[in-house]
Amino acid sequence: MVWLQKLFTKTDNDNILSDKTDERDWLNLDPQVFGRSKIFFSTNQSIDLYELEELCDSVGWARRPLRKVKKALDHSYLVASAWEVRGAKTSLIGFARATSDHAFNATIWDVVIHPRFQSKGLGKAFMKYVIRKLRKDDISNVTLFADAHVVEFYQRLGFIPDPEGIRGMFYYPE
Amino acid sequence: MVWLQKLFTKTDNDNILSDKTDERDWLNLDPQVFGRSKIFFSTNQSIDLYELEELCDSVGWARRPLRKVKKALDHSYLVASAWEVRGAKTSLIGFARATSDHAFNATIWDVVIHPRFQSKGLGKAFMKYVIRKLRKDDISNVTLFADAHVVEFYQRLGFIPDPEGIRGMFYYPE
Repeated sequence: MVWLQKLFTKTDNDNILSDKTDERDWLNLDPQVFGRSKIFFSTNQSIDLYELEELCDSVGWARRPLRKVKKALDHSYLVASAWEVRGAKTSLIGFARATSDHAFNATIWDVVIHPRFQSKGLGKAFMKYVIRKLRKDDISNVTLFADAHVVEFYQRLGFIPDPEGIRGMFYYPE
Repeated sequence: MVWLQKLFTKTDNDNILSDKTDERDWLNLDPQVFGRSKIFFSTNQSIDLYELEELCDSVGWARRPLRKVKKALDHSYLVASAWEVRGAKTSLIGFARATSDHAFNATIWDVVIHPRFQSKGLGKAFMKYVIRKLRKDDISNVTLFADAHVVEFYQRLGFIPDPEGIRGMFYYPE
């Protein structure tokens, strides 16, 4: 099993080298897995919409109008991103965002990790980071709508499907 | 069966007496059901937090800190309310709100209709009003998390539970 060294547990603050200036949370990576790559998470790194589109392309998502993507990012409560730094190059390798009422509910959307970084523990660490950011703001509950094939992934992170019979429901335009 | 007269269909605009000044959508009510009450829906009527708390009390919801309720309302994309006008008195009888990224997703929360107005078609008309307001803004899909006993109610309105195996999931604080 490939892993990130004990990340984001309450006793492991020394594993996060927080840079207050640009709020980059650098990961302490296993070099046997990640080689010379450095990776950080951020909630305020500016995102190039074309680079985000490329990331979404890499996991096969349908393209969306960039104008609408920009609007959605502008009106998201949290925009989280994961970045690989390799030499002089910084590349977007993960993304997630959340809508919220800033009090009771936050809902996570558009979670994506580049295929090259999947199955390495990065998605788990990234979601823990997102949850931590939302919980820090005293938001009562965090929700999401999980595709069938990632329900177990989110369960392992502590998400409960249909708690007390609550069902996620969608209304699509006619 | 008790009913509201043909409400909010595309050919029935004359049933909505829109008052542009304060954006009240008056309902055309069956007097045999509603007597002398007049009812309107609004998305910009200012809401007294104590009156909202009373409404939530009437359906047995757990009380929430008003400070947090205010914050949630301030940061909701849509705050919809239903009002009964009887003589000189205007009372809050229904409420719903939605968070949104203003583009792809809106999520409806805190739907409540006063018990005195339940099973009269009002909840259905109110939700159609909420959906209409969200759809008007070109939001791609409208979601919600339905308690087990209202899943069928939302299904009749066109909401689909777990479409393509998508599951609603909740993360609660430890």
